Amino acid sequence: MGRSLLSTEDLDEQAILSILERAAHHRREADGAGPERPLPLRGRLVVNLFFEASTRTRLSFEMAAKRLGAEVVNWTQSGSSAEKGETTLDSAKTVAAMRPDALVVRHAAAGEPRRFAAHLRCPVLNAGDGAHQHPSQALLDALTLRDALGELSGRVLAIVGDISHSRVARSHLFCLPKLGVHLRLCGPPALVPRGIEQLVPGGQVTVTHSLAEALRGADAVMLLRIQKERQGEVLYARSGEYSRFYGLNEHTVRLLPPGAFILHPGPFIPGVEISAELAASPQSLVLKQVENGVPVRMALLERAVLS
Amino acid sequence: MGRSLLSTEDLDEQAILSILERAAHHRREADGAGPERPLPLRGRLVVNLFFEASTRTRLSFEMAAKRLGAEVVNWTQSGSSAEKGETTLDSAKTVAAMRPDALVVRHAAAGEPRRFAAHLRCPVLNAGDGAHQHPSQALLDALTLRDALGELSGRVLAIVGDISHSRVARSHLFCLPKLGVHLRLCGPPALVPRGIEQLVPGGQVTVTHSLAEALRGADAVMLLRIQKERQGEVLYARSGEYSRFYGLNEHTVRLLPPGAFILHPGPFIPGVEISAELAASPQSLVLKQVENGVPVRMALLERAVLS
Amino acid sequence: MGRSLLSTEDLDEQAILSILERAAHHRREADGAGPERPLPLRGRLVVNLFFEASTRTRLSFEMAAKRLGAEVVNWTQSGSSAEKGETTLDSAKTVAAMRPDALVVRHAAAGEPRRFAAHLRCPVLNAGDGAHQHPSQALLDALTLRDALGELSGRVLAIVGDISHSRVARSHLFCLPKLGVHLRLCGPPALVPRGIEQLVPGGQVTVTHSLAEALRGADAVMLLRIQKERQGEVLYARSGEYSRFYGLNEHTVRLLPPGAFILHPGPFIPGVEISAELAASPQSLVLKQVENGVPVRMALLERAVLS
Repeated sequence: MGRSLLSTEDLDEQAILSILERAAHHRREADGAGPERPLPLRGRLVVNLFFEASTRTRLSFEMAAKRLGAEVVNWTQSGSSAEKGETTLDSAKTVAAMRPDALVVRHAAAGEPRRFAAHLRCPVLNAGDGAHQHPSQALLDALTLRDALGELSGRVLAIVGDISHSRVARSHLFCLPKLGVHLRLCGPPALVPRGIEQLVPGGQVTVTHSLAEALRGADAVMLLRIQKERQGEVLYARSGEYSRFYGLNEHTVRLLPPGAFILHPGPFIPGVEISAELAASPQSLVLKQVENGVPVRMALLERAVLS
Repeated sequence: MGRSLLSTEDLDEQAILSILERAAHHRREADGAGPERPLPLRGRLVVNLFFEASTRTRLSFEMAAKRLGAEVVNWTQSGSSAEKGETTLDSAKTVAAMRPDALVVRHAAAGEPRRFAAHLRCPVLNAGDGAHQHPSQALLDALTLRDALGELSGRVLAIVGDISHSRVARSHLFCLPKLGVHLRLCGPPALVPRGIEQLVPGGQVTVTHSLAEALRGADAVMLLRIQKERQGEVLYARSGEYSRFYGLNEHTVRLLPPGAFILHPGPFIPGVEISAELAASPQSLVLKQVENGVPVRMALLERAVLS
Repeated sequence: MGRSLLSTEDLDEQAILSILERAAHHRREADGAGPERPLPLRGRLVVNLFFEASTRTRLSFEMAAKRLGAEVVNWTQSGSSAEKGETTLDSAKTVAAMRPDALVVRHAAAGEPRRFAAHLRCPVLNAGDGAHQHPSQALLDALTLRDALGELSGRVLAIVGDISHSRVARSHLFCLPKLGVHLRLCGPPALVPRGIEQLVPGGQVTVTHSLAEALRGADAVMLLRIQKERQGEVLYARSGEYSRFYGLNEHTVRLLPPGAFILHPGPFIPGVEISAELAASPQSLVLKQVENGVPVRMALLERAVLS
């Protein structure tokens, strides 16, 4: 059967830590052994099943699989089968019938990867489903924060932006608090679901609509992209106004303590949620996040196929 | 030179049986040996040369090649070279000049794979050419039927739908009768070429325009998709009317003997040629067909490259 | 760090010859050893980073990498990230953060591969940047000419067509003269930059607007495609007129000495810059050029990753 990863809700602290350990192991191995390293997934086959465009996440999973010795086949919903009347579950069943060792699924609709996993014998890794979950992103962010901050317990992360439409925010909600991190969710009222902080018991998640309050004393801030393509209607059309109140720039960055780190799941819109200068500054962990994506996904693929 | 497979017309009974045997061998190996199995095409290079969109067949050939240890490169006619004035034979010559070990060709025009094979030193596998042939589909269906029915000699398969535009039907015409199967071709008069049964001597192929007559006493039925995209003009526009006379649904399925099997080369249009319920029923071999596609194509790739 | 290849300007005679030697070595090995040959890039990862469509060059680099045992990941700028506001340098930094062993870059803008190389730790191979350079094409042409002509010193190559917009011509300008070849650049005045011959000292490059003058006594002629897609405005709209003065056809080919060779970087527009008959004639080296592309790119990838 293998082990799917559909949501960070399904992981407890121990599971998260063991994934991070394994990812760190792969990273050390990449630094050291060079091309002679072991290939635990040699002879295995991973299918990237993407019903929504994504180059970055697809590439990261593809590299992770190949670094482990697996073969990768890419399927992108071209519209052709869809036009012929097949549902995406039909497509997934068809691909699974070819007996791959794991499916990496990206889908515009929340819950589809879990529905696939319920119908298929093959493990499913959720690579982002609508505004629901993107668990590998949360895990790579956790690794990046641990690298930068050391012990995570008692640390404060501000997540700023379009919380409502962000699968990244929703994934963190069920990940970082398990490691002891306090989350401050911040954005304009229209972009923060009312009562979202109550999804996590124990007061580890708070909501604020003030950037100053979110950044005060924070160890790190993660900016989220305004998800124009998922909003349907434009909730915050005048991005100039958005930037003035919630963008991180040379003025607002002073609200952060010196030495605090800046994250963004990318791709970012320069000058909207973050200035290009800050994204490229020494405080920024943006490229570390991308780099950590590969070993974290290696750990997830191994866990899916070999356990 | 290697051995191309361009049409089931080129295969005699012995050749068909030896391909099915080899496919069954690969299937057993996949069940047993796991990732330690031999890789007879390691170091070989297969190019998927697709001049017509297809995710399912491309994926199946790609998986087959990778399961054998071959490397795969995908070329899809993007229109760019075509717009620059290159013919598809020019494109094929260019790709072949790079010295791949086999070309898997899908083309909208009947006969193009054979034309390619005549001009190139590299073996060509026909992955579907217009309304002409799709030999790997016929072979995987033969394997699926043999799994379900045991000895094929004397069995009756009804093929129902758009016979005129179906390369699958045309491929079966020159495959299953060689194994002793009686084919009943069934569809509205406009969608069955007049005299098609005379292409196979010996009376093993018959034509009927009555679904009841086609299904009576049959061991299995294969539904074909209404090929809207290949018809040019709409021959059978009101698909509701088509479904009533030729679709397989809760009513018409009673015309089949109990225990008879249902096949469809996919993707199907639910509610037109087959109801979604029947396609997912225990009688349905649809996913077995997909599953068998991989070992059959492994056998074809080995035959092309190593013989 | 590895060694990028951004322009033939960066190569001296010795470097060119050593690349050609290594390519010839790979070609001999492909002829002989079969699938048992060594795989010097096993466990390495090459990314094809294409910001401009190209099937032929992408395919050739992909085959070269796989023949060496490397894994290949293809990234084509889908527009999605670009629409989200990311620059192509941002995209390249993101991909490089995943720690591939080499990037193969195609870009519509001259100079982008060099800009990428300046910002990244990963070696960059220029697979064509605007009207600037396409160094692997020049090197494969050099190998093809050496195969056909033997010693290159003192030989004459006429390059005919849209010199202004041709990265191939510009790449040859800094490659073949280093091997002793005399280049005659020929095209209508609007398509030959004034003074281009002065870029190469020593009188090894000359310009003429007369096809007869260009072909007289030449050892080989290379036709260039009219780059409609890069001209913006149509400089030479009536291609019939172009063909009459500068196209190679049954009449104008008599201006060439008997036994002279014909090259074209492809894809060509039959009947515009060259007739289909001549492109397929025994004098034509067009498919040899394609064939040599793979071993030359193998040599470049090895040089990039292993040195």
